[in-house]
Amino acid sequence: MILTPLLKRSAKGLSWKSLCFFSSTTSRREIRDVAELPERLHPEYHDTKHLELLCLHWPCPPRNVLITKKNSDPSITKSLVELAHHIHTTYPHVNLILEPHAAEEVHEQLCFPVYSSPTPRHEAPPVLRNKVDLIATLGGDGTILHASSLFATAKRVPPILSFSMGTLGFLGEWKFKEYKRAFREVYMSGAGVRYGSSLFEEDQPAAPCPDAPKESIAKDPCDSSAHIHPSTPMGWSSIRGMSMGNGRGARILLRNRLKVQIVSPSSRNPPPPIHAMNEVILHRGADPHLAIVEVFVGGRFLTEAVADGIIVSTPTGSTAYSLSSGGSIVHPLVSSLLLTPVCPRSLSFRPLVLPANTPITLRLSEKNRGREVDVSIDGVKSSVAVGVGMEVRVWGEDIRNREGVWCGGVPSIVRGRENGAGGEDHWVGGLNGLLKFNYPFGEET
Amino acid sequence: MILTPLLKRSAKGLSWKSLCFFSSTTSRREIRDVAELPERLHPEYHDTKHLELLCLHWPCPPRNVLITKKNSDPSITKSLVELAHHIHTTYPHVNLILEPHAAEEVHEQLCFPVYSSPTPRHEAPPVLRNKVDLIATLGGDGTILHASSLFATAKRVPPILSFSMGTLGFLGEWKFKEYKRAFREVYMSGAGVRYGSSLFEEDQPAAPCPDAPKESIAKDPCDSSAHIHPSTPMGWSSIRGMSMGNGRGARILLRNRLKVQIVSPSSRNPPPPIHAMNEVILHRGADPHLAIVEVFVGGRFLTEAVADGIIVSTPTGSTAYSLSSGGSIVHPLVSSLLLTPVCPRSLSFRPLVLPANTPITLRLSEKNRGREVDVSIDGVKSSVAVGVGMEVRVWGEDIRNREGVWCGGVPSIVRGRENGAGGEDHWVGGLNGLLKFNYPFGEET
Amino acid sequence: MILTPLLKRSAKGLSWKSLCFFSSTTSRREIRDVAELPERLHPEYHDTKHLELLCLHWPCPPRNVLITKKNSDPSITKSLVELAHHIHTTYPHVNLILEPHAAEEVHEQLCFPVYSSPTPRHEAPPVLRNKVDLIATLGGDGTILHASSLFATAKRVPPILSFSMGTLGFLGEWKFKEYKRAFREVYMSGAGVRYGSSLFEEDQPAAPCPDAPKESIAKDPCDSSAHIHPSTPMGWSSIRGMSMGNGRGARILLRNRLKVQIVSPSSRNPPPPIHAMNEVILHRGADPHLAIVEVFVGGRFLTEAVADGIIVSTPTGSTAYSLSSGGSIVHPLVSSLLLTPVCPRSLSFRPLVLPANTPITLRLSEKNRGREVDVSIDGVKSSVAVGVGMEVRVWGEDIRNREGVWCGGVPSIVRGRENGAGGEDHWVGGLNGLLKFNYPFGEET
Amino acid sequence: MILTPLLKRSAKGLSWKSLCFFSSTTSRREIRDVAELPERLHPEYHDTKHLELLCLHWPCPPRNVLITKKNSDPSITKSLVELAHHIHTTYPHVNLILEPHAAEEVHEQLCFPVYSSPTPRHEAPPVLRNKVDLIATLGGDGTILHASSLFATAKRVPPILSFSMGTLGFLGEWKFKEYKRAFREVYMSGAGVRYGSSLFEEDQPAAPCPDAPKESIAKDPCDSSAHIHPSTPMGWSSIRGMSMGNGRGARILLRNRLKVQIVSPSSRNPPPPIHAMNEVILHRGADPHLAIVEVFVGGRFLTEAVADGIIVSTPTGSTAYSLSSGGSIVHPLVSSLLLTPVCPRSLSFRPLVLPANTPITLRLSEKNRGREVDVSIDGVKSSVAVGVGMEVRVWGEDIRNREGVWCGGVPSIVRGRENGAGGEDHWVGGLNGLLKFNYPFGEET
Ligand SMILES: NC(=O)C1=CN([C@@H]2O[C@H](COP(=O)(O)OP(=O)(O)OC[C@H]3O[C@@H](n4cnc5c(N)ncnc54)[C@H](O)[C@@H]3O)[C@@H](O)[C@H]2O)C=CC1
Ligand SMILES: NC(=O)C1=CN([C@@H]2O[C@H](COP(=O)(O)OP(=O)(O)OC[C@H]3O[C@@H](n4cnc5c(N)ncnc54)[C@H](O)[C@@H]3O)[C@@H](O)[C@H]2O)C=CC1
Ligand SMILES: NC(=O)C1=CN([C@@H]2O[C@H](COP(=O)(O)OP(=O)(O)OC[C@H]3O[C@@H](n4cnc5c(N)ncnc54)[C@H](O)[C@@H]3O)[C@@H](O)[C@H]2O)C=CC1
Ligand SMILES: NC(=O)C1=CN([C@@H]2O[C@H](COP(=O)(O)OP(=O)(O)OC[C@H]3O[C@@H](n4cnc5c(N)ncnc54)[C@H](O)[C@@H]3O)[C@@H](O)[C@H]2O)C=CC1
Repeated sequence: MILTPLLKRSAKGLSWKSLCFFSSTTSRREIRDVAELPERLHPEYHDTKHLELLCLHWPCPPRNVLITKKNSDPSITKSLVELAHHIHTTYPHVNLILEPHAAEEVHEQLCFPVYSSPTPRHEAPPVLRNKVDLIATLGGDGTILHASSLFATAKRVPPILSFSMGTLGFLGEWKFKEYKRAFREVYMSGAGVRYGSSLFEEDQPAAPCPDAPKESIAKDPCDSSAHIHPSTPMGWSSIRGMSMGNGRGARILLRNRLKVQIVSPSSRNPPPPIHAMNEVILHRGADPHLAIVEVFVGGRFLTEAVADGIIVSTPTGSTAYSLSSGGSIVHPLVSSLLLTPVCPRSLSFRPLVLPANTPITLRLSEKNRGREVDVSIDGVKSSVAVGVGMEVRVWGEDIRNREGVWCGGVPSIVRGRENGAGGEDHWVGGLNGLLKFNYPFGEET
Repeated sequence: MILTPLLKRSAKGLSWKSLCFFSSTTSRREIRDVAELPERLHPEYHDTKHLELLCLHWPCPPRNVLITKKNSDPSITKSLVELAHHIHTTYPHVNLILEPHAAEEVHEQLCFPVYSSPTPRHEAPPVLRNKVDLIATLGGDGTILHASSLFATAKRVPPILSFSMGTLGFLGEWKFKEYKRAFREVYMSGAGVRYGSSLFEEDQPAAPCPDAPKESIAKDPCDSSAHIHPSTPMGWSSIRGMSMGNGRGARILLRNRLKVQIVSPSSRNPPPPIHAMNEVILHRGADPHLAIVEVFVGGRFLTEAVADGIIVSTPTGSTAYSLSSGGSIVHPLVSSLLLTPVCPRSLSFRPLVLPANTPITLRLSEKNRGREVDVSIDGVKSSVAVGVGMEVRVWGEDIRNREGVWCGGVPSIVRGRENGAGGEDHWVGGLNGLLKFNYPFGEET
Repeated sequence: MILTPLLKRSAKGLSWKSLCFFSSTTSRREIRDVAELPERLHPEYHDTKHLELLCLHWPCPPRNVLITKKNSDPSITKSLVELAHHIHTTYPHVNLILEPHAAEEVHEQLCFPVYSSPTPRHEAPPVLRNKVDLIATLGGDGTILHASSLFATAKRVPPILSFSMGTLGFLGEWKFKEYKRAFREVYMSGAGVRYGSSLFEEDQPAAPCPDAPKESIAKDPCDSSAHIHPSTPMGWSSIRGMSMGNGRGARILLRNRLKVQIVSPSSRNPPPPIHAMNEVILHRGADPHLAIVEVFVGGRFLTEAVADGIIVSTPTGSTAYSLSSGGSIVHPLVSSLLLTPVCPRSLSFRPLVLPANTPITLRLSEKNRGREVDVSIDGVKSSVAVGVGMEVRVWGEDIRNREGVWCGGVPSIVRGRENGAGGEDHWVGGLNGLLKFNYPFGEET
Repeated sequence: MILTPLLKRSAKGLSWKSLCFFSSTTSRREIRDVAELPERLHPEYHDTKHLELLCLHWPCPPRNVLITKKNSDPSITKSLVELAHHIHTTYPHVNLILEPHAAEEVHEQLCFPVYSSPTPRHEAPPVLRNKVDLIATLGGDGTILHASSLFATAKRVPPILSFSMGTLGFLGEWKFKEYKRAFREVYMSGAGVRYGSSLFEEDQPAAPCPDAPKESIAKDPCDSSAHIHPSTPMGWSSIRGMSMGNGRGARILLRNRLKVQIVSPSSRNPPPPIHAMNEVILHRGADPHLAIVEVFVGGRFLTEAVADGIIVSTPTGSTAYSLSSGGSIVHPLVSSLLLTPVCPRSLSFRPLVLPANTPITLRLSEKNRGREVDVSIDGVKSSVAVGVGMEVRVWGEDIRNREGVWCGGVPSIVRGRENGAGGEDHWVGGLNGLLKFNYPFGEET
């Protein structure tokens, strides 16, 4: 079992004393198997009055939190440890999951066990997909894309709480220093629903999840007894010292994903679709020559693109590669797909914005004479190159099922302003602050 | 009363003999007042399986048809007469409405009365808005825009059946030579609904509109007795010789409009909003200097545009002025607004695509030092220029009311293919055929 | 005579005491007629090793300096007075010319006469063109364009020393606080040539201009005796206290102009060409409809532009209107003309860069049906509108005559770095500092 | 010696009879070594009145003609044989050089020897560079680029006569069916100069090249005696049956090349520069991540490009890759370099046009963390990848030496119109015919 080397290492920890103030057995610095965790909770998303932002509602407090982080940045690793400690101390029933590399890197600095599971670079093992209630990311846009990619074959992505860490990003919502407020807001989100406005004031116990055995709360954040029943969910009222204030729920921006299938003409069964948060791109890659791609829209032939490549992007991805290729900026709430050419050999290939439910097919033309093109999804090159006759099929994900329930997309936890204003702010702010949108001419001040 | 000169003229007709083969009184070549017509019918729009095209359903056959045409083109005038005759002959209960100029131009060539009403260039008088069931346009995109503008202050625009007349257009759906099939398809649309599949087979009389007195059908298309009760609606079964075939209903593309309000800081009551089909543009016009416009999105300050102008466009308008200014092409079914600058003095003002329900405000900055800018809606310059401090407020029209009923937008009758395929075809076809989208390099054939 | 009212006013001055420390007669605050001044000197421009910057060489010190300024900015008016005083005090033989409006505004604050002449907004009267040796501008790009426009019909523009005054500009070279160094550098430029390296060291008198009577130097800057012989040129050695240092000459960037002729089909004799520094543009102006313009290049039909307008720009103008319309940025030393469409109704009208000597003709097509378009040169609308059939003919100015002598263009005095580096600096600096070229994404610091 | 296998094969020819009508020895179907040929002739290029096209002047008739062709297209191979025969028959003293692959492919179909030499894909061996007087290309733009690349390290490229072969191209000038006229025009070009207007009328023998032994003309085109002295140049008068007409010389468009040096920080001696006809590009290639490149212009830091790549292009290349990346179209006679980013992660990186003599340096930033980028020159990937710290240095080639003699560039033989009009025609024609420049909206005819 792949985890063994990690588990072995746990005994060698030396630095934990600086972080854990209680005596503890070495078992506390263990890496445990994610499989031991209780099943994933699926929150609901309710409509709100703030444009189309949704409100997060947990059925009961989240239990399993995956923290992903950008690699090779020691200061981010430090922040991870800080966040882990905070969560462990304040929300003792929350189990922390780390990716193997991070788990190995930090578990000795933690006085409590973390959970992990071997995750190949771009898809979480089924077990992970069945366990994670909530994701927190520490890094830039790439870290969020990576977190989303772990659920690339899953229908439902856990809500993502993203902290931008110096690395500036357009998708990141929260500053790390806000982590306490942010985590509490997410953790408590929906708690008020069951009790109306009187919740927290009367301090009634919040409903534990139906299948959860009642249990006393661990008093000591480093008391290992809290960990021997990791599946024990606790009601929100168990969180001591919470001043619930207005009980404001976390705001969710459901970012549409797109679905991608790489189909070869010979294959009988097309592979299951992979979801992308930003885009899928077909690109000449290392070949110095133009690629020739036939583009079909809604089942009809649209055009033959002779170009470096072709991007099909979500509105979220409209500020990523598509932007660099001349695409318009599309607000994430415009239900649509973008078709943007990369360096087309034509004066008249203007980017298109299509309804999200339009199926788009990109077929590598016979004219490429045997040459292959690269396919990348959210910046990660597919191991499968696309050869002549092969097709990349793309269409938008439904984020509402037939009953009108919001269930797809990437639920991004939006940072509201203190006064309760919505997430528009962030997007407009991102245009100006990050993309330097319409940056005025004139000398710097 | 303004119509008097027109009505007077009707007695002077000399050329009618060439067109009317029956003896007739001069009254047949009259221009009558639109006010005499029965009240407007409001069709319903039902969802279909063809993507998001809707299906037109008349409560009972349409009675009042407005035909608009491009001016100063004799061959179009000829086509108007041909179409009018066809409608009168085949659908004797249909009343034809013409714009004053056209009425005066052609009524002497018609052996039946037409209805008219003084229509100032860009807004129909309330009476017209209360009478027209259906519009047919003969011309180019400009004629469709004009027809739509006649309902610029109305919540509901009648369905528009557009014939492109040599003048190539992107919005025009039908070729004139298809007018018989086209008109019948629209006229009959929804007839089948009340009778299930057995309609027409059993040849039962279609339900006349509730308020309509039963009446016998005029046998003679030029028999003036048909006209003395213009308010008499007839059931569909009264149309002789109709082979109803599959009773296929007309397909509707509901084109979102945007709403525009020009507000001056001093004014207490903002004027009622005007609807645009393509776009509203603020432009420096004759002033050779840059305009400075503050742009607010969703109530928040987005940016200060220093530019020739700023366009807020519908997806329909994305292939019009916005395209020339570098905007993306947006499919009419993507619910959105486009914000496209015209010649901005910035390297970084990229066009934006926003959710249709985002309110956008364009305010003329104090920095313009007293200069005014032009406002044009769908290519027609507003009589009001915008001065410093004044605002243009724009937001998308709701095309569905709270009960989910489709009611706004411009209901454009889409030309399906014989085999029943939907309107996507036309859009993709328009990109390739008209806009020369991604036109391939290489020698002409 | 138009100047009379100005001259009259000169007696009423009250504020002069604050500026002039010597007793003086009222005549000192006079506005005199430019015609009284000695004839204009024509400097030579010599090749240098610094890329293609040239070196300015006066035949003898400049005598008549025109100062133009931006209007309605009191702080600029103050700077004008400061600069005028400095020049008068340090270079007593220099005569100052102001535009009528400025002359009237400031002459009472000056204890010496200024020269002026009625200048209609966009063309200097011939007399002015024959008198001005050097121009100094105080303002932004618009002020430089205006200065250049005063010589729009002249073959040779005097060297322009431009001070940017808060109003940021791309063309402005110098900061006002550098005015002493700047003026001296220009004034002395070329002085060293006649004497080789020993100049100034041996302090020999510099050669006065051949036709100039020898004369003693006015000791007192406000001594009116200095003014009674305004035509007296002085050798450079007369400038007291000059530490000549390395005798570095002023660097000149010769900015190519383009020549414009508006020709109507009926007219026999085309008008004399007008020169533009930035561009000429044909634009629909107040008309809300597209203009249709036939474009001929090198005498051959290139294309029919259906657009808001068409720009023909110099490389200098490539960072002005052409940039806003999507044109490339062209370095002023690339001998070329830019053809840039404004909002063309075509997906495939890419901006063109043509050799400077290519004649371009823009003809208003018959298809405009009688509509006229506006013509603007350097941001000033021509009084002549262009009607159907009329042509705007454009071609680049020769800046070198047959003998290879540099004589055309707008000689812009470039601000070198102290260490003698050339003007490239300014252009690259302007891209980054002013145009925010390739402004990096990411949060502001 | 690499040629041996080729030479051996020559005896196996079977198909020659269909082409050669005279008895011949097998030696005629030989492939000989280029080294045997007489030294290359360097023509002169004289200024003309037609804008900046030049006129070709041979010192004596060209002797060694290299024909290159597109590979794997049998119809082009057939045309090659036809052209070779025509040349051999009509200009018996001309020696034909083929690339090894083509030589092997066709020599058995020729009743005379051809010359060849092993040419690695992108650089001719020195021997070839010293032998070729004239190049004829049969293919598309790629074939012309390839021909030019054979002289990528040479200062002087022989004149190129390009025939476009079905494969449409922007650079190709001549249609194959014009080959007789075209070849004669080039061959004779400059012949008239030595004799003034009386040339050909008096039919005096044209001057043979100084070092050429006088010799009688081979009467029989397939007479092998003509070949035993391949170094024998003949005067133009030896071409029988030439009706010299107006003696019009071939028009030359000297296309500027750029020079590229790939320099690693450690290397002491930078490699000799390679010339490019279209462009050099740095590109991320197979790496799915952005490349970070520091750009220096004229020795000064301009900007840090975060992008797919950066192109430095000639005006000739402005219609190639740079165009696809959004660059302007620059006429080949505008002496300039284009700096065009490929998919830059910035809203404000506009393409630049710089003076041809500006040195540009592209340095791979440290921020790429060890990643390498691809370098391609004229569509051929360099074997050297560029690693962190390495630089690509680019500057324009001087096409005139200090004495003002035209000597660099790619001398492209322009197809004039019968009436003697210049090459502008072709460029404007190419924009319209090939690039579909400003292709008008509207239905196809
Ligand atoms: N020429 C270009 O613009 C290229 C862009 N990319 C983009 O990079 C993404 C992968 O990101 P990384 O793994 O971090 O690669 P990376 O390290 O190459 O960085 C990509 C950059 O794009 C930004 N970014 C990513 N998604 C964004 C979004 N939705 N909106 C605004 N900015 C966004 C990131 O902050 C980062 O600055 C891909 O999905 C693709 O969109 C990838 C290659 C080339
Ligand atoms: N530079 C430009 O591109 C300009 C464009 N316009 C457009 O013209 C419209 C008014 O049309 P007209 O009265 O006929 O003026 P017009 O006679 O000036 O023609 C406008 C052109 O735009 C086309 N057009 C109109 N709406 C379109 C659409 N939705 N999609 C594609 N093509 C469309 C028409 O077919 C016609 O070719 C305005 O709404 C504005 O969008 C107006 C002025 C300048
Ligand atoms: N949409 C646009 O970009 C428009 C641009 N203009 C430009 O304005 C010029 C006239 O200038 P003003 O009288 O000051 O008018 P203005 O007061 O309207 O300002 C024009 C702006 O362009 C800048 N500018 C002028 N020439 C420039 C150059 N060569 N490079 C970079 N920036 C330059 C000025 O600094 C100023 O910011 C015209 O020649 C035209 O190029 C004029 C109208 C519209
Ligand atoms: N996305 C793009 O536009 C790409 C363009 N290229 C271009 O291809 C060139 C190499 O050509 P091939 O070997 O034939 O490769 P190729 O077979 O990939 O074709 C390149 C295309 O560019 C055309 N072309 C080449 N030079 C041109 C010029 N100066 N003006 C107008 N069209 C031109 C050719 O006719 C051909 O259609 C490179 O120098 C580069 O400029 C190469 C890769 C991608």
